[in-house]
Amino acid sequence: MTTARASRGLLVTVEGGEGAGKSTLAAMLADRARDAGLDVEACREPGATALGERIRRALLGAGPGAPAPAPGAELLLIAAARAELVVEMLRPAHARRAIVICDRYEDSTIAYQHGGRRLDRSVVAVVNRAATGGLSSDLTLLLDIAPAEGLARGGAAGDYLEGEALAFHERVRACYRELAREDPARWLVLDAREPPQALVARAWERLDALRASTRPGPAGR
Amino acid sequence: MTTARASRGLLVTVEGGEGAGKSTLAAMLADRARDAGLDVEACREPGATALGERIRRALLGAGPGAPAPAPGAELLLIAAARAELVVEMLRPAHARRAIVICDRYEDSTIAYQHGGRRLDRSVVAVVNRAATGGLSSDLTLLLDIAPAEGLARGGAAGDYLEGEALAFHERVRACYRELAREDPARWLVLDAREPPQALVARAWERLDALRASTRPGPAGR
Repeated sequence: MTTARASRGLLVTVEGGEGAGKSTLAAMLADRARDAGLDVEACREPGATALGERIRRALLGAGPGAPAPAPGAELLLIAAARAELVVEMLRPAHARRAIVICDRYEDSTIAYQHGGRRLDRSVVAVVNRAATGGLSSDLTLLLDIAPAEGLARGGAAGDYLEGEALAFHERVRACYRELAREDPARWLVLDAREPPQALVARAWERLDALRASTRPGPAGR
Repeated sequence: MTTARASRGLLVTVEGGEGAGKSTLAAMLADRARDAGLDVEACREPGATALGERIRRALLGAGPGAPAPAPGAELLLIAAARAELVVEMLRPAHARRAIVICDRYEDSTIAYQHGGRRLDRSVVAVVNRAATGGLSSDLTLLLDIAPAEGLARGGAAGDYLEGEALAFHERVRACYRELAREDPARWLVLDAREPPQALVARAWERLDALRASTRPGPAGR
């Protein structure tokens, strides 16, 4: 099978609050990229690897309505799953210049653990760095939606996060929007109320432009 | 029930390589302290809390002979269990001025993840700090033994760590001994080949002296 390649691997991450439609957008964008002949891997956080899925069960294992873990424990647990993902999947995918589309990545940790739980941003940054070793998102899609609307949608995860007060989810959203303002070259903010086809079209347009900009020039690189 | 109290909570940690006899010493020391009328809690790492035990299963879940997790994932996972332990058990025990005896704590992470896995010591220190929030061991018992001898003993955990090369375990031991040299006021190095009764007697002597030194003086504190 022949696949088109960028000159380097690309990491596309999908971010947003509960019920924003991240997994749908991630799956549709992966299909769109595969239709274009690209080598694509899709993953979700926390999870994706054997250890990561065990960590996901450890985190969510207490079931809906159970108390949330201590904020520091939640931070480190999610980072642990990410560290395994980076080594097992992201670095190998990068090495073969594939495109990885990941449902949540380190910006989730800033938005939820700093924005939502109010952990110190520098602590979150240090732990993120320990997990990723500096492998960062090249394009970050923010599915923006009012928390009340997102939570009211079907298809939300039904985990302990949904039991958090609306104010928590409002802080998560505000933090995401601030992150997008800080680095508009990396972020694409999408209105999650738009139809999925419209969202994937805008995301693909941006991804395709990014691919083009990373293609080897005439002199090769 | 009346229990004697120090003027503050004390954390006693038991450290050492595989098969050194940590859990035996921790249990015997806890019994000795209870016999003296003290309020004692015993715990082990990773584990001790509901989330911590789920994390332990996630870490060891692949069974003996399975590949070790990525070093960064292992570091963060163990730290996550510790963060939950600190919030759920250590801080409440400190608040009521109890003595906690913990089978492994943050020095294990320095010895195994820095000494053994060769992760950067400053990264390990930052992650430890994120997990403990600065709640450190007051007395650290090192059960020192040659790795070949420890591994040959019965009662070792049978997990993936035992599959590491002897050189790994030698690095862990060397790191422990270096830590003890750096801070002799906190560490008590014990020869793990001594009989358990002799070990617990020496550990109790040191703990009792520490308690005496933290009792309120005549003016109170």
